[in-house]
This record gives sequence, C-alpha cells and structure tokens, in this order.
Amino acid sequence: MDVPQGFDPTLILVLNLAGTFVFGLSGGLAAVRANLDLFGVVVLAAVVGLAGGITRDVLIGTQPATFRDWRYLAAAAAAGMVCFFAGRRLDRAERGIMVFDALGLGLFAVTGATKALQFGLGPVQAILLGAITGVGGGMLRDVLLRQIPTVLREGLYAIPALLGATVLVVAQRAGSTNPLFPILGAVGCIVVRLSGLKYGINVPTPPGDRPDRKP
Amino acid sequence: MDVPQGFDPTLILVLNLAGTFVFGLSGGLAAVRANLDLFGVVVLAAVVGLAGGITRDVLIGTQPATFRDWRYLAAAAAAGMVCFFAGRRLDRAERGIMVFDALGLGLFAVTGATKALQFGLGPVQAILLGAITGVGGGMLRDVLLRQIPTVLREGLYAIPALLGATVLVVAQRAGSTNPLFPILGAVGCIVVRLSGLKYGINVPTPPGDRPDRKP
Amino acid sequence: MDVPQGFDPTLILVLNLAGTFVFGLSGGLAAVRANLDLFGVVVLAAVVGLAGGITRDVLIGTQPATFRDWRYLAAAAAAGMVCFFAGRRLDRAERGIMVFDALGLGLFAVTGATKALQFGLGPVQAILLGAITGVGGGMLRDVLLRQIPTVLREGLYAIPALLGATVLVVAQRAGSTNPLFPILGAVGCIVVRLSGLKYGINVPTPPGDRPDRKP
Repeated sequence: MDVPQGFDPTLILVLNLAGTFVFGLSGGLAAVRANLDLFGVVVLAAVVGLAGGITRDVLIGTQPATFRDWRYLAAAAAAGMVCFFAGRRLDRAERGIMVFDALGLGLFAVTGATKALQFGLGPVQAILLGAITGVGGGMLRDVLLRQIPTVLREGLYAIPALLGATVLVVAQRAGSTNPLFPILGAVGCIVVRLSGLKYGINVPTPPGDRPDRKP
Repeated sequence: MDVPQGFDPTLILVLNLAGTFVFGLSGGLAAVRANLDLFGVVVLAAVVGLAGGITRDVLIGTQPATFRDWRYLAAAAAAGMVCFFAGRRLDRAERGIMVFDALGLGLFAVTGATKALQFGLGPVQAILLGAITGVGGGMLRDVLLRQIPTVLREGLYAIPALLGATVLVVAQRAGSTNPLFPILGAVGCIVVRLSGLKYGINVPTPPGDRPDRKP
Repeated sequence: MDVPQGFDPTLILVLNLAGTFVFGLSGGLAAVRANLDLFGVVVLAAVVGLAGGITRDVLIGTQPATFRDWRYLAAAAAAGMVCFFAGRRLDRAERGIMVFDALGLGLFAVTGATKALQFGLGPVQAILLGAITGVGGGMLRDVLLRQIPTVLREGLYAIPALLGATVLVVAQRAGSTNPLFPILGAVGCIVVRLSGLKYGINVPTPPGDRPDRKP
C-alpha cells in the first residue's frame, strides 16, 4: 500500500491524529455553544473529527482507517470530553471553534493528499482529495448545527486547503521525502487561514448589485 | 462472507427488514407532518429507511445490500405508502416518529454490528458501526427537514445504540449463536431509548452558565 | 468493465459532462443568489456538479470517475466561473437554478442507470441508482444552503428521474444500443420536470386536514 519513497508514515499518522483531535475540539466547542448535553458534545466531536478522514477513504475506495485503528476514535472522543469539561471556561468559544478548525484544515489537507498519492491518484486529484479531507469535517459540523458551511461563506478557506495539499504533492512529485514538506504544507495552510480570519480578508463577491444583501 | 459461527442469517435479515420498515415509518410520518406530498413522503421514508444500511455497507467497503435485494426498497416504500394514507389519522405524529425511530435504532444497531463482525472488523469497531447504522437514518431525516439531529440533542440516543450493539458483540465473541442475543440487544436498546423519551431522562449538560439557553 | 452491448461510451461521457456542467450552473446560481463570494460560488458549483456522480460511484463500489478524469472537475469549476461573472445579469436566478437543475436531473438519471447496468446491477436497482444520481446534486445544494430539498417538496421531481432511468434500462434490456434511447430518456425526464415546474403540477398531498399548513 505504501509507496517506497513516501513521507515518513509515523509523521503522517501523528499529523492525522493531531488533525482528528483539533477537529474534535472544534466540533465539541460548537456543541457546547449550542447547549448540547454530554453525549451531544462527544458525538459531534467524534463526527467532526472523523468525517474528513472517512470521506477521504471512502472516495479513495479503501476501508476507513477509523475502523481499523482505535486511536482515531480515542482522539476524537478525548477532544469531546475536554470540550465538555472545559468548554464553558473559554471566553470566546466562537474564536476557539474557528482556530481549531484552521489547525485541522491544514493537517488534514496534507495527510489527505499524502494518502491519495499512496493509492495512486494523480496530482490534481490528490490536491482535490486533500482539500476535501480538510474541508469535510467542518462542513458536516455546520450542516448538523444548521449553519451555512464556512467553506461556502469564506473565500480563504478552500484556498489555503488547496495550497497546503499542493505543497505536499509538488514535494512528493519532486521525489522528496523530507519531513519538512508535510509540516510546511500544513503550517502554510494554517497561517493563510488564520490571517484571513484575523484580518477579514475575503475573495471577491460577484459583480453587480446585491439587492438582498443582509448587512 | 459469512462467519461459520454467526447468528442465524434469516433472523438478521428479518431484523434488518423490520428496521428498514420502522425507520421508513419514522421518515414518512415526519414528511406528513412537514406537509410534503405523496412523493415527498415516499422519498423521505425510503431515504430514512435505507440510509443507515447504505452507510454501514459503504463504510465496511461492500456494495450496499439495498442494491442487491429489492425487499429493502419495498419495505421502505411500503412504509411511505402507509404513512401517506394513514399518517393524518395519527393524533400525535411527533410521538409516532420518535417511537418508530427507537424501534429502528435497536434493530439496526444489532444488525449493523453483526455485519461488521462478519466482515472481520474488531469488536470496538463493530460496536461503533452498529451505532452508526442505528443513528444514520434518523440523522439524515432531521438534516433534510432542517432540524438539529436527535442524536445531538438527546443523551439517551447514542448510548442505547452502543448498548444494543455491545450485547451482540459480546455474545458473538463469547461464541454464542443463540438467537436470543440479537433480540436481547435490540430490545435492550429500545427499552432504554423509550424510557429516556418517556421520562425525559438526559445525560448531563456542560458545567457552567448557559447564557443563551432557550427554555 | 464495459458490457459488450452497452450504449456508445462517448455519448455517455458527453451526457455526463453536460450534466456536471448544468448542475454546476444550478449550484453556482444558488450561491450567487445567497451572496457567497467567488470561492463559495465555485465550491458550491463543484459540489453540486460532482455530488451525484460521486454518490453513484461510491454506491456501485467503484472509485469515483471524478478522481480519475479531470474533465468533470473542469466542467463543474467552469460552471462556477460562469455563474460568478454572469450570475447577477440573470433577472430570475431562481428560475435559472430550477431549469439547469432539470437538465442535470435528466442527464444524470440516464448516465447513472447506464453505469449501474455496466457494473452488473439488476434493472430495478439501476433505475433507483439512476434516480439517486439525478437527485443527489440538487439535494446537497439545498441542504448546504439550508433549504428543504426540492425532491421532498415537489412531486414531479423524483418521478421524471425514475422515468428517464426506466427508458434507458428497458432499452438496454431489450438489447438496443441505439443512441436515441439515452437521449430520449434524458429529454423525457427534462420535459416532464419542466412541465411540472411551469404548470405547478404536483402529486397528491396526504388526505385529511393540514392544521399547520403554511399558505
């Protein structure tokens, strides 16, 4: 399954588990803010933490890693417990949700692209699948809590995910197995996303009047 | 595909078809309450009745049974027709939705865990997949009708599903093929879920103030 | 993979790419109407254009064509760009969304059924999978923008999709490879759907009072 000259599998596993945990935090905090009970918090943390990777594996056509390695479930459930007990102490849950979401976005974009390359997908498809992996969890979180997904509302969301996956794919295609590149891809994505959040940078909206714009 | 010492396949098939039918009733009643037309009622019944099993099979990595055995579709569509013609006579559709949902939850938790074991997943994964199978249909019903899914709002929803699947997995791991255990698992889940509904039992909510709690 | 006596693969590919493009237009226009920015428009166009085919392939159990052929992504993204730059000039985006949706419904119902037959599914399953392929994109578009999916609200939506897929399956089972039949199935579906839209034809609603009907 593993390509001979891929990136260090342990590094990818660690990035994947870290991504599951931070996406779990993002889902758990959103559940706390929505006043869900203990199980709602843990379930939403698990759904958000695991959804991206499950989607990635189903699209690649392999059995989801979640069902073969208990550590993914443990990471997501642990994130839910942390949110349940500590969530209300966070002054600004809203900000926490978005920051953890940004971290997960970068980590999953990189690991999603890596796995796609391992399974023989082309570079463009690997970049796309990396972005889907990064975007999937947050999209499901927003749909389940009845909000329009962030990926549709904010320009600098899908773009950094594509960027992070691209760094990884270009490095791999150039034959590098330097662990710097997965980390660089993830950090690059996270920095761009957080900058967009902090400074409210957005991509253009359609030209013309917007009669029904709500301010 | 079948493990030599599994539970009686006919029993599992019957439980699966019964689960599809009752989840179909739950979806169909929800559609009647939302004033959908004939086709909306049948489509939502089919979606809710079939979604859990399709999700289970996609996650296991096998072609959904729905597409190989017409009886699943027939059971879900029949449930939709029943709801269309009889739905308005139900005084309390709301209650009916939740009761049929509870029956489906127990039946699918058990059959989902059984199928996961058949395909070689570990015990923890089989319990998780059983719960996903039980929870999937109702989650999709609520998302399509723009409600926050019950599994996120009520504590005693995922817990009984995990409980029912656990009974099944423990029995199978102990080497039993006694048909009592799948039935016990399903009934146990249903009783716990209905008790939670009847007495309004819930798991704890996060500690601290809830400034935006809506009473 | 290809059945010996199937329809012309090039014709099916063209219908598939056309379906992706028009569903992309439908998603892109819905995003423009919802005042999403450039990336929101392109992402929603891609999601709506690609979702039906991805769902079809996952359910059949084959790797989604989207990840092996870049032209699907290009067609969906091009539709998003067109909507971004031209969307506001459309006087009645609402109508455009529904018309492009109808075109996609017919095209995907036919190509979905064809692919299901190619992979050995039975005729009833192929009709069902054709309808799912046609209905999937629009359903996801509506869920992401927080609307109750059209397939649940309007009777003449799933019916024409089933009709178009049925024309295709009957022709194939009769041994015909005449390219007229896929086109006839698609056009038949589109005409029935557009008629339903134009004349407000609907299937019956459940008998009895509707106390909470909103006029």
